Amino acid sequence: MARIAYVNGQYVRHRDAKVHIEDRGYQFADGVYEVFAVMCGKLIGEVGHLERLTHSLKELRIDWPIKRSALMVVINEIVRRNHVYDGIIYLQITRGVAPRDHPFPKEPNSTIVLTARKSAPLDKEALRAGSDVITIPDIRWQRCDIKSVALLPNILGKQQARESGAFEAWQVDNTGFVTEGTSTNAWIVTQNGELVTRNVSKEILNGITRLAVIEAAKAAGISIVERPFTPAEAISAREAFVTSSSSHVKAVTRIDGKSIGNGHVGDVTSRILDAYIGYIESEGGPKLTDTWN
Amino acid sequence: MARIAYVNGQYVRHRDAKVHIEDRGYQFADGVYEVFAVMCGKLIGEVGHLERLTHSLKELRIDWPIKRSALMVVINEIVRRNHVYDGIIYLQITRGVAPRDHPFPKEPNSTIVLTARKSAPLDKEALRAGSDVITIPDIRWQRCDIKSVALLPNILGKQQARESGAFEAWQVDNTGFVTEGTSTNAWIVTQNGELVTRNVSKEILNGITRLAVIEAAKAAGISIVERPFTPAEAISAREAFVTSSSSHVKAVTRIDGKSIGNGHVGDVTSRILDAYIGYIESEGGPKLTDTWN
Repeated sequence: MARIAYVNGQYVRHRDAKVHIEDRGYQFADGVYEVFAVMCGKLIGEVGHLERLTHSLKELRIDWPIKRSALMVVINEIVRRNHVYDGIIYLQITRGVAPRDHPFPKEPNSTIVLTARKSAPLDKEALRAGSDVITIPDIRWQRCDIKSVALLPNILGKQQARESGAFEAWQVDNTGFVTEGTSTNAWIVTQNGELVTRNVSKEILNGITRLAVIEAAKAAGISIVERPFTPAEAISAREAFVTSSSSHVKAVTRIDGKSIGNGHVGDVTSRILDAYIGYIESEGGPKLTDTWN
Repeated sequence: MARIAYVNGQYVRHRDAKVHIEDRGYQFADGVYEVFAVMCGKLIGEVGHLERLTHSLKELRIDWPIKRSALMVVINEIVRRNHVYDGIIYLQITRGVAPRDHPFPKEPNSTIVLTARKSAPLDKEALRAGSDVITIPDIRWQRCDIKSVALLPNILGKQQARESGAFEAWQVDNTGFVTEGTSTNAWIVTQNGELVTRNVSKEILNGITRLAVIEAAKAAGISIVERPFTPAEAISAREAFVTSSSSHVKAVTRIDGKSIGNGHVGDVTSRILDAYIGYIESEGGPKLTDTWN
């Protein structure tokens, strides 16, 4: 069965899905994206994703290509046409095609693209198995709250992680604090059992899974504080993990080659993962409308 | 006559020139570019541009899609097929099409795209007429020596300039020094008659016109120093100008609303512009092979 993509109002075969070479997404990284997880046939956290998309588009003054209600129809249609039961939906919106010139075009016509990809179902044991993280300097621009496609530093960091045998690279700002992973948010559990993740600012992306985990942790009575932490604090932490829409809640058991805690998934991480799974199963995604105001 | 573009080995009508939506240039800004000026039918500074392209590709570990000698043939063919006498050639190379995933694909297949655009011939009086610059914070990533397509901060800065009625925005680093314009290098002439432009580092792009102007200034016996300068120093300077392949040498007569010198193009800028034009006419472009080693 052929994979189907959506490009500017048309459902097309994935392999034939193209954009013009003067799409500003291609020439200027002038666009934004979202990745939606689909689990057991259910779209996860779509309200949160759409609120963040609204934030990204507003900050860059990119017009919505279609109404938000129409977009929800398209997203569900892409899930349906690709028979995605577990997988991800990728959505990209750019400022559209225009003769190459830095300023915004006078009459922009946003481009919208959606793709779908099936994946294996959430594998709880794999998420608990533990993974390696390295730390690298954060060399990104200063508006990481916008989920833009200007991901060049992120892919370089991720590649560096993989070449080091690690799953992820945690980026460290020039004052010595971890911002986030190249495609995940970063978390530690201190020796006092307190869950710590960096507070929201222009330095990090406010992950939808991050928000869901904060909710889940609070509901589970786990103490949580949003503040920066250093690689040294992370290495001496009791537990660590990363979150994202496609990595869910994934245990981190080594940072820069040093074991975290006893080198196995910790109690708090396990509880968070359980709470997150419970939340997905019961809620179908966070209701986060207020978060982006 | 239809405009012709070049995409991965094919000469196609510009309006039909497309790339796949999973081209990493589109999804990750995982690509680089060059803009070549064509003046009086002559490609300007192609050796410098190709050396810089080599630097950008090497730093990002993107494979050359075709041999450098073959690329020269394609560039000249694009000039010929589009009957460009005055204009620009845009060249983009990306890490190619691959299923969306942050790490480099195992078997990358670089994408190459070229477009051509005609423009009016170099207008010396327009370049001398003077222009406005504003200053803005430099919020870009920390590898601006790589000419990548991750240009989102640049287009936001350029748009801000245009909305302020200015031609360009000079970006100021977090220590208070001007790095460069959003698509140009920044120059001042001090009250002592010394030509100043920022030294090459990871904070700026080493402009091909920048290099040509340094050569031209030296040949004309103008004292030149490569060092950072502040907006305050620029405002109290005797002259200012910007350089790029498409803006050439363009006088700046106001910065943040304040007149520079007597508010008209200055003597040194005029001499530099004359020397640059002479250089273009006689040389057909800088020979800069050693600069990128």
